Amino acid sequence: MGAALERLESVVKDRLAAGEAEASYVASLAAKGRGKIAQKLGEEAVEAVIAALGEDDPDLIGEAADLVFHLTILLSERGLAWGHVAAEINRRHGTSGHAEKAARKQ
Amino acid sequence: MGAALERLESVVKDRLAAGEAEASYVASLAAKGRGKIAQKLGEEAVEAVIAALGEDDPDLIGEAADLVFHLTILLSERGLAWGHVAAEINRRHGTSGHAEKAARKQ
Amino acid sequence: MGAALERLESVVKDRLAAGEAEASYVASLAAKGRGKIAQKLGEEAVEAVIAALGEDDPDLIGEAADLVFHLTILLSERGLAWGHVAAEINRRHGTSGHAEKAARKQ
Amino acid sequence: MGAALERLESVVKDRLAAGEAEASYVASLAAKGRGKIAQKLGEEAVEAVIAALGEDDPDLIGEAADLVFHLTILLSERGLAWGHVAAEINRRHGTSGHAEKAARKQ
Repeated sequence: MGAALERLESVVKDRLAAGEAEASYVASLAAKGRGKIAQKLGEEAVEAVIAALGEDDPDLIGEAADLVFHLTILLSERGLAWGHVAAEINRRHGTSGHAEKAARKQ
Repeated sequence: MGAALERLESVVKDRLAAGEAEASYVASLAAKGRGKIAQKLGEEAVEAVIAALGEDDPDLIGEAADLVFHLTILLSERGLAWGHVAAEINRRHGTSGHAEKAARKQ
Repeated sequence: MGAALERLESVVKDRLAAGEAEASYVASLAAKGRGKIAQKLGEEAVEAVIAALGEDDPDLIGEAADLVFHLTILLSERGLAWGHVAAEINRRHGTSGHAEKAARKQ
Repeated sequence: MGAALERLESVVKDRLAAGEAEASYVASLAAKGRGKIAQKLGEEAVEAVIAALGEDDPDLIGEAADLVFHLTILLSERGLAWGHVAAEINRRHGTSGHAEKAARKQ
């Protein structure tokens, strides 16, 4: 997933830098403002929730990809990167389940 | 992000395998069923939308980490992995912005 | 609000009964299935959340109307009515604040 | 529904006016700020979306009541009323389906 996210982040940053002149989805969404990006993130989350309750795996994978895509746009527009999120995930969940269990036993 | 997601996925899988006996957040959420995982994903998305409209970067990073965490639980419970999402992202966004631009010009 | 909701409910029922042949928004949404109505409800809720965080009153009123409209479609498609929701609200919140306060004092 | 909403609105206003001293759900939620009310509205909407995809009518009615309750708190906290929403609904959907159809034929 790391390489995929880095490439996606790079694509999104390219499109954001290109600005309104570039007729890309990312640029046109960003041009509408942060509120619209947040709205799209929320809408994609609703679709992911609905897909989660279904049985169609490719559908859920597609909605997860959409959600990650819009989260990438949101982070990039705020000047943030997946690296920040990765650091937070490592801080919170860095200990494996087994290690945590062993640690708790002592 | 790749290593962080792989570790998170591994932690989540460990906790899911441990089942109800394990008093972890992941196991107790999964024990409530897929609907509850989907509900939590939706709730975290609402918090991400609200953080997106604010100005507090650590808050948004924390909400993004929460969203990714619950998406990992959801995918794992369905027997899916971030690798499936990465493949879908590569399929959709594999071409860089510049390459796409160059391709369109020809 | 009662008369407005009754009229809205009647309009929605008319459109639902008219079916696909009727080129109305309600009929075309219902023709896409319950999942699509639920998706639209979720999307309108996201817009209401965003409007709630802003300062534009007509915007929030408009989003509230949209949310109520889609909730009406959802209820009607399920064969339910605002009357059922009103009964539940009365059951839960039927006691006024003052009455409750007085009751608690005794 | 009109009487139920008016009573609910009156209860909510009472609780809001009572302020933090009053240990009611409405007052304690409002004391946490508009962001928290918006968050709860979003969370209730997620639950309504999930109930919409199920088959349990009392569950959907309960979630609809929760959604309407939190929308009432949100509107009241902003100094708005269901009357404003009713006026907007009448403005948009005031014409019945049949009347609209007849009008379109001319």
